[in-house]
Amino acid sequence: MLNQRQIIKDLLQSTAFDTEVHVKGWVQTTRMNPYIAFIALNDGSTINHLQIVADISIFGQEFIDKIKNTGTCIAVTGKLVESQGAGQRVEVQATQIELYGESDPVSYKLQAKRHSMEFMREIAHLRPRTRTFGAILRIRHTLAYAVHKYFNDNGFFYLHTPIITGSDAEGAGEMFRVTTLDPVNPPLTEDGQVDYKQDFFGKPTNLTVSGQLEGELGAMALSKIYTFGPTFRAENSNTTRHLAEFWMIEPEVAFNDLEDNMNLAEDFVKYVIGYAMEHCGDDLAFLENRLIEEEKNKKQEERSPMPLLEKLRFVLDNPFERLTYTEAVDILVKSKPAQKGQFKYPVSWGIDLQSEHERYLVEKHFKKPVILTNYPKDIKAFYMRQDDDGKTVRAMDVLFPGIGEIIGGSQREERYEKLHTRIKELHIPEESLWWYLETRQYGTAPHAGFGLGFERLVLFVTGMTNIRDVIPFPRTPQNAEF
Amino acid sequence: MLNQRQIIKDLLQSTAFDTEVHVKGWVQTTRMNPYIAFIALNDGSTINHLQIVADISIFGQEFIDKIKNTGTCIAVTGKLVESQGAGQRVEVQATQIELYGESDPVSYKLQAKRHSMEFMREIAHLRPRTRTFGAILRIRHTLAYAVHKYFNDNGFFYLHTPIITGSDAEGAGEMFRVTTLDPVNPPLTEDGQVDYKQDFFGKPTNLTVSGQLEGELGAMALSKIYTFGPTFRAENSNTTRHLAEFWMIEPEVAFNDLEDNMNLAEDFVKYVIGYAMEHCGDDLAFLENRLIEEEKNKKQEERSPMPLLEKLRFVLDNPFERLTYTEAVDILVKSKPAQKGQFKYPVSWGIDLQSEHERYLVEKHFKKPVILTNYPKDIKAFYMRQDDDGKTVRAMDVLFPGIGEIIGGSQREERYEKLHTRIKELHIPEESLWWYLETRQYGTAPHAGFGLGFERLVLFVTGMTNIRDVIPFPRTPQNAEF
Repeated sequence: MLNQRQIIKDLLQSTAFDTEVHVKGWVQTTRMNPYIAFIALNDGSTINHLQIVADISIFGQEFIDKIKNTGTCIAVTGKLVESQGAGQRVEVQATQIELYGESDPVSYKLQAKRHSMEFMREIAHLRPRTRTFGAILRIRHTLAYAVHKYFNDNGFFYLHTPIITGSDAEGAGEMFRVTTLDPVNPPLTEDGQVDYKQDFFGKPTNLTVSGQLEGELGAMALSKIYTFGPTFRAENSNTTRHLAEFWMIEPEVAFNDLEDNMNLAEDFVKYVIGYAMEHCGDDLAFLENRLIEEEKNKKQEERSPMPLLEKLRFVLDNPFERLTYTEAVDILVKSKPAQKGQFKYPVSWGIDLQSEHERYLVEKHFKKPVILTNYPKDIKAFYMRQDDDGKTVRAMDVLFPGIGEIIGGSQREERYEKLHTRIKELHIPEESLWWYLETRQYGTAPHAGFGLGFERLVLFVTGMTNIRDVIPFPRTPQNAEF
Repeated sequence: MLNQRQIIKDLLQSTAFDTEVHVKGWVQTTRMNPYIAFIALNDGSTINHLQIVADISIFGQEFIDKIKNTGTCIAVTGKLVESQGAGQRVEVQATQIELYGESDPVSYKLQAKRHSMEFMREIAHLRPRTRTFGAILRIRHTLAYAVHKYFNDNGFFYLHTPIITGSDAEGAGEMFRVTTLDPVNPPLTEDGQVDYKQDFFGKPTNLTVSGQLEGELGAMALSKIYTFGPTFRAENSNTTRHLAEFWMIEPEVAFNDLEDNMNLAEDFVKYVIGYAMEHCGDDLAFLENRLIEEEKNKKQEERSPMPLLEKLRFVLDNPFERLTYTEAVDILVKSKPAQKGQFKYPVSWGIDLQSEHERYLVEKHFKKPVILTNYPKDIKAFYMRQDDDGKTVRAMDVLFPGIGEIIGGSQREERYEKLHTRIKELHIPEESLWWYLETRQYGTAPHAGFGLGFERLVLFVTGMTNIRDVIPFPRTPQNAEF
């Protein structure tokens, strides 16, 4: 009903031979002999193209020359037939072709050839038309849908926590200021500070770094909630792992302890990866081959240890290794790289583990995803539940091969006195957290949750290596184009 | 696996009588006689409470006095039995009760009595624990899930368009500035302007007012996309219909024209409302009764014309009325209120219709949802497709009873020359839209889309009257608490 056109993904599966079909899409490539043009047409519904066979004697060479170029948009009416050629099951013998939009082969930036990923980022408005980025965006969609489906099916409620926040207590990173004050001459108080009373919200506000604290409020009423929204870091990190704007998923569950939390994290992440494997087979196979091509010129030890699909299957089939931070430090201290002084950062109990340490544990020692728990309290956030030893907290980090930390979470400190004391110790402005503290004063309950950086998940599943390539329009220092 | 506790929603349906069950939740109310305490327990999974029967001789009066208060959090082990009392099918005879968190009946702000909606907004950290807000948040979740399910099932891809944007071309409203520059002494250029080159992104950036323009880029590659994310307006509107931060859904479809767009909008909105009716029966019934109670003291003509569920059913069962702006103005000019001079704003062709006009059309004249199309181009955005008459554009607004505009959309101008000329006419800085214009230069296609304000949908479905009550933590002028 919604539109007359047929979807290429469906047509490629169709056996309704000799019926009339209507398809619309963008020309990928055209092969020609003096009599016939073979047009590979794509409409974004699938990575696979539909072959359009156009008899040049019917359409005229002039018209064919207009529509043959990469990027041209056409509507085709024709007959669906079994394909004689290799590489496709069906094709369409065109009876009518309508030209929607030409594409000049000289000035069009996205010719059918290899472009660098850096160049692709400069044309982020066009790159979704390529096979690689089409595949990434379809997988990204499928993972996002799987997130919602998993939580909905398991009785969680999607909670929209605020993006603009007056609280900066979480301390997860540098924040962006949100304001409507005059940028050149802001109103000042008598002592020369900005008078935020005159700002839109009547106080300083920032973009959220996490919805967790508000998520906890939801869990203390609805038991099981999750967030899935944008979060922000104003950090000047120009790496392949960081974005200034990224999407985060944060479930929070009343009555869960740290073990429940680990079970949830493992079950959840396996579900969404499995869901993508089930629904994005063609896209994943394409990206697997892309990665193999990409790594051909690399040394053996720099290549991915497994092909993409095998890697994903491996994650699904094996239980994540679970151990404490203390046990992990033991392993690291006794490791070859530590003994030989090969770690850039020396390991000892109390340090914040560096990427090289995490990678050793995941990629060399255990060779599978690892969940580290019970970190020293001094390197973790104020809201994590304190262990009885007075030294560690019920934190957990899930570490993935090639990615590092993909999930960070904890059981939360639900005991008012402990939490209040910790907030004072860390000089966190208590008055900005009155509402958070009240949940511990009235009907407090054990609870736990975690955050999953969505782009890191997409990175892992697609096998891409730069996080800027798995979000449609990346925001990084000095870059907010489109 | 994920947790030992059983969910109250499931238990209320259970027939596994005489088995041991474990439930955890918050005490809503407690009735007592000298021998037995009847505790209404809720865990947020449903609006309905589970009755816990506690023999005081087992637990002791002192313990019962500790746990009986509204808001207390407890864990109960007991036997599931058929209830003897009225109002519930099953109850739990407690054998063990663990106290997680007390709730002082004097200082706890959320006593089991009627509170004003204004007061509830001040305690937005606690209000999800009430029946009304629990119901709203469950319905909100269900609507959000239905949005994703509808689009996924219909071959749309979820596209995360940017929140921080360097483009202010859409012009849909006042914007919030995003910056990391020194708030008191920002770096200045030689001519005394803020030197945004030194800001985080190297240029002025704002919070997005719409993901549409970037959504169009996605549709020009993947054919069918939708966004569902936060959008922002820095407008000083203190009304029951406006938020500074709200969630918007924006589908965009290549090859769709205005009629396809109307069909999609109507099919979509009926689907999500129907989905909520199917999955939130108890919550909707509760809100229906709440609304009847609420309106008891109102005059007949100020009350809702139909009970909540009947209103929703009515929307599903009737095709939306479709007419052009020009036809609507005709009706309005000839209407009684116009003839009697009762409209505050006089009606004539070319004006932007006011709320009073929309309400007349929807609530008095047609008595059902209305889609108005082909508005004068001067009151609509630059990107809407121009009609052949040179006067109107292929815009559409979907108007709902009691809500007004719930959806605004259009077929987009896909012809480069027309679009370019319009951009020049309106003095929109062309260089900020180079990427948007390029989609019309290379493989352009007819396409159409719309935006649905998610909170207005939740408002309609829940029958609430203030938009601040259908989002967990509302952001409005002078208010960014929590």
